[in-house]
Amino acid sequence: MRKPDEGRNRVVIQNVKPELDCGRFPIKRIAGEMVVVEADVFCDGHDSVRAQLLWKREDAKAWETTAMRPLGNDRWQAEFLVDEIGRYLYTVAGEVDHFGTWRADLKKRLAARQELSIELQNGALLLDAAAMAAKGPDTVILRKKAEELRHGGQEAANIALADELAEIIERYSGLAPVTTYDRELAVTVDRERAGFSAWYELFPRSWSRVPGKHGTLRDVTERLEYVAEMGFDVLYLPPIHPVGRSFRKGKNNSVQAQPDDVGSPWAIGAKEGGHTAILPELGTFEDFARLVERARALEMEIALDIAFQCSPDHPWVKEHPEFFKHRADGSIQYAENPPKKYQDIYPLDFESSNWTGLWTELKGVFSFWIDKGVRIFRVDNPHTKAFPFWEWAITELKAEHPDVLFLAEAFTRPRVMERLAKLGFSQSYTYFAWRNTKEELTQYMKELTQTELREYFRPNFWPNTPDILTETLQHGGLAAFRSRLVLAATLAANYGIYGAAFELGEHRPAAPGSEEYLNSEKYEIKVWELDAPWSLKPLITRLNRARRENAALHNNESIHFHTVDNSNIICYSKYAMAPGEDENLLLAVVNLDYFNTQSGFVNLDLDVLSLGPDEEFVLEDLLADREYFWCGARNYVELRPQEFSAHLFRIRKRISTV
Amino acid sequence: MRKPDEGRNRVVIQNVKPELDCGRFPIKRIAGEMVVVEADVFCDGHDSVRAQLLWKREDAKAWETTAMRPLGNDRWQAEFLVDEIGRYLYTVAGEVDHFGTWRADLKKRLAARQELSIELQNGALLLDAAAMAAKGPDTVILRKKAEELRHGGQEAANIALADELAEIIERYSGLAPVTTYDRELAVTVDRERAGFSAWYELFPRSWSRVPGKHGTLRDVTERLEYVAEMGFDVLYLPPIHPVGRSFRKGKNNSVQAQPDDVGSPWAIGAKEGGHTAILPELGTFEDFARLVERARALEMEIALDIAFQCSPDHPWVKEHPEFFKHRADGSIQYAENPPKKYQDIYPLDFESSNWTGLWTELKGVFSFWIDKGVRIFRVDNPHTKAFPFWEWAITELKAEHPDVLFLAEAFTRPRVMERLAKLGFSQSYTYFAWRNTKEELTQYMKELTQTELREYFRPNFWPNTPDILTETLQHGGLAAFRSRLVLAATLAANYGIYGAAFELGEHRPAAPGSEEYLNSEKYEIKVWELDAPWSLKPLITRLNRARRENAALHNNESIHFHTVDNSNIICYSKYAMAPGEDENLLLAVVNLDYFNTQSGFVNLDLDVLSLGPDEEFVLEDLLADREYFWCGARNYVELRPQEFSAHLFRIRKRISTV
Repeated sequence: MRKPDEGRNRVVIQNVKPELDCGRFPIKRIAGEMVVVEADVFCDGHDSVRAQLLWKREDAKAWETTAMRPLGNDRWQAEFLVDEIGRYLYTVAGEVDHFGTWRADLKKRLAARQELSIELQNGALLLDAAAMAAKGPDTVILRKKAEELRHGGQEAANIALADELAEIIERYSGLAPVTTYDRELAVTVDRERAGFSAWYELFPRSWSRVPGKHGTLRDVTERLEYVAEMGFDVLYLPPIHPVGRSFRKGKNNSVQAQPDDVGSPWAIGAKEGGHTAILPELGTFEDFARLVERARALEMEIALDIAFQCSPDHPWVKEHPEFFKHRADGSIQYAENPPKKYQDIYPLDFESSNWTGLWTELKGVFSFWIDKGVRIFRVDNPHTKAFPFWEWAITELKAEHPDVLFLAEAFTRPRVMERLAKLGFSQSYTYFAWRNTKEELTQYMKELTQTELREYFRPNFWPNTPDILTETLQHGGLAAFRSRLVLAATLAANYGIYGAAFELGEHRPAAPGSEEYLNSEKYEIKVWELDAPWSLKPLITRLNRARRENAALHNNESIHFHTVDNSNIICYSKYAMAPGEDENLLLAVVNLDYFNTQSGFVNLDLDVLSLGPDEEFVLEDLLADREYFWCGARNYVELRPQEFSAHLFRIRKRISTV
Repeated sequence: MRKPDEGRNRVVIQNVKPELDCGRFPIKRIAGEMVVVEADVFCDGHDSVRAQLLWKREDAKAWETTAMRPLGNDRWQAEFLVDEIGRYLYTVAGEVDHFGTWRADLKKRLAARQELSIELQNGALLLDAAAMAAKGPDTVILRKKAEELRHGGQEAANIALADELAEIIERYSGLAPVTTYDRELAVTVDRERAGFSAWYELFPRSWSRVPGKHGTLRDVTERLEYVAEMGFDVLYLPPIHPVGRSFRKGKNNSVQAQPDDVGSPWAIGAKEGGHTAILPELGTFEDFARLVERARALEMEIALDIAFQCSPDHPWVKEHPEFFKHRADGSIQYAENPPKKYQDIYPLDFESSNWTGLWTELKGVFSFWIDKGVRIFRVDNPHTKAFPFWEWAITELKAEHPDVLFLAEAFTRPRVMERLAKLGFSQSYTYFAWRNTKEELTQYMKELTQTELREYFRPNFWPNTPDILTETLQHGGLAAFRSRLVLAATLAANYGIYGAAFELGEHRPAAPGSEEYLNSEKYEIKVWELDAPWSLKPLITRLNRARRENAALHNNESIHFHTVDNSNIICYSKYAMAPGEDENLLLAVVNLDYFNTQSGFVNLDLDVLSLGPDEEFVLEDLLADREYFWCGARNYVELRPQEFSAHLFRIRKRISTV
């Protein structure tokens, strides 16, 4: 081992947090948030050290610096604000604080009434060195003070110990050799909607007002207020491209389609075009532009589904046969999960000899729709495409359009879902649909908010999707829909529903034990009775309003679970975390039994709520026009599933009148 | 972001364990141990993957490979043996297993009675590709089997699914693009004594048989059997160099030495020489050589204390004034902890302009003593020397002499002690001396054995040192000495005592509240009554014999704490971990109350002991000639501090006679 170039770097910097995979991946934040950075910073011996957080926008030339605070045990902390979308970098630097060490020692010597003249001269040498590094008037001041120290005596000691002098010295680093942390770490900063959003998924094919007629983008545009009134901010459309004819699936996923069957929107591509075309039955690019515009007027955004797979009729099959895997007989390999065959779908081959051409083409699909005004993409099955592609494509697209967001539709193994989030997906589907009990929900939320996942994995909770009609919803009645809705919308800052199936309580499975819907919209045109009296629209509207008006629901990390002496009732609080926001404190109580009234005592962790042991407070139920008065930790709740399945309380503290 | 050179590497490798600081530091093992490596290895989609552990001696050209086993959830594991001292490297590689995927699918197709002819041709293509990569007869076999697959039919399917074919394919990697983990990780492999050792520290100055006469190395050589009989294997000597005269400390650390005071051995250097000289009163290099030889004959080793600091009379002060810090008046800065002054000590300045010369000189001190036959160094206050020096010096010295071991004497902040261990120290002093209660001891052992510390920090437990006479030993009587001895020798595989103070129960502090010894040997010649009737020599002898004979005590990691319904009694088991060793299972029960009899029920975790719920077993007390018969989990213990403070049981299972 050779000696280092500079062996006098005595300071160690290690264990910087947050840091993902040794700096391989950026963490994620929302514009306006703080990034709190911690590190171990220390040196040999007993000298003091100084630690600095360095940070900048990725494209900035110079680092900004912030002095770090010691937390004890050689741990230091500081934070910086990421106020613009894009990418930031941060790292940590440290140096031995010779002046600080000398100053602290001087105090002890003074207290012990030691002779100080040589010590003060030692200090003057430190000031001389600092003067060399200083700028402007500081240089003059430091030189002058060095002279004063050399005069010695009590007066010199006072000058040496004055805060003014320490503050000047603090402005200059590099007075001792500076150690900089080995790595520069990155932050991807997204706009607010990446961290707080309410999604509504609908199939335009079913939004005609005339039963049996193929719905159009115009129909959606005309009836968009229905969605806006409920307070959603993202309208997500399944693929709107031409649907393949070869091996088209019939109603209820039957292998033999009837001539008038509309097929699955995920069997993408026909003679009319592929991923950059619109199914003629849905309308034109003009219609699409009008929909985008109308959504914007209603404070919503359109999210498009990008499903990278092809029907046998997709133009790429002829233009780029090398994008697909070929069987020994020369035919193209269709999708399979042996023994099941999906002959209406050709997967793309990421081991293609022309992988680079494939990547460019796929990225081009996103660019095409970005040009059409789309800024949010829901990516279908990203886990069946090569990881390196996603990292490249998302990094490139976000460099060009830092406001673009990607939702990963991956319900697969944990490591795979984590990887996709690390590679750049802005939001991720989760296992929420299958987390039902209090223990399961608590455990899962802790995993999402108290582990490293919180730095890069933004969960989006869906109680249902066109592919997932859970057993709970099949059997729990409308009470289950209500509870699952409240859970999704209040546990996670990002959530969504597949409507109108959800608000209308659609619960019939294709077969016993199946999570597929009976007569699924994926394969046919449906008629939704949007004004049905049992519709959950009023509850959804209240919930989305509560979400918008309460900053506590804009984050996941503040969640805290409070104990209830009844395993059917779950109780949790959230508070506002963003700097500068008013105190906003919410408490949710949800009945997980969809058939029976459940009651019990909540035992609040008062510390988390900043409440005193005997403090009275007001709870305003945001889901019902009622107020409650509670006192202290232990309070009674009773939830009747047929009337209300949940409370969503805003806690108001009473102003002391003493 | 540019596209990667090869975008078809679909496999991800992450979270490799063990790995310290992103591979910045080597882990540590003992020759003959296994290194168990785990990693997440997975790819997109549903294809199978293969994972391989790559490992080699650092200087070997080619990697050895070991197939990894899947543990579930995309985690893989394999291990390799480090059978020689020195350095090894390891990393992980993975690739998509196209043949394995195809084979698993083929089974499902067969079960579903699908037509297979094209599938078998697809398989033949995979075999063709494998044949290109194969060597020797495998090439021919693979070509032949490919032809047979092309014939189709049940016979071809049988050939395709035969284990023989899978085993041939398994021999070849690189059939798909191979992903290799970003980093190569290192292992420092030490000899057994690094992981299992019993140290005895003595001051040669006190080992003369004539009271008041300065002891010599010859005296130590002559009386070495006393130490060997107790079963120690490391004899550690405080510095044996000439002691400075300037500002020499008198008895009990007094500032004014008397003419006949011998001073502190840590005030190193006089006109007779510095770190490469021997104090004339102790003898000559010949005497030293004879001591080294005699120790070897008694299966012991000499460990020397290396204290990098100088008395004002050290030759370096004149030869290398630049090795020291100078005050404003030109004088050399003595050691201080303001307001305390240590004018007999000059610290070395690691910010010296000639730091590189200083490093070379210091490393030379180790090399000098290595030439004299020393292979173990106890380093005094390593935490007051620059970290980069230790990494360089230890790495260099171990590259030249891989059998050399270093014990870090650092009782300082946790991050500093951890850093020294990471930089290369083979063993480390610990906080054991100040961990007294059951909770403290349990917590500390878990920290040492169940966190990342286990990979690089080898604890050495000392109940006392010349600087540390704990309050427990001051006030607990011989019972405290006995319990603390048993704890040190059985909790940690490396332990040591400062004798003869320890075995003779020396417990008088220099002052109330001080941890210094009264009339400390550090400043004067003492007379030890080695054959005092209260000497703990018999207990020490039994303990060290039990340690040697029981492999369970050669490791720390197998420790498990069992509950006892009395907070004054601690109970823990250890078992042998090295491969190929016979089952060896020990159970320690120690009374932490040094004044009162304590009794209670132990509640054994039978799973850890591989005992059945109603199984009878025999406990042989290795500290007393007694056997006990226990049954199941709950068993009674009673410990009377004035008779015996601890059991150290070897558990023997009764052979079933049914």
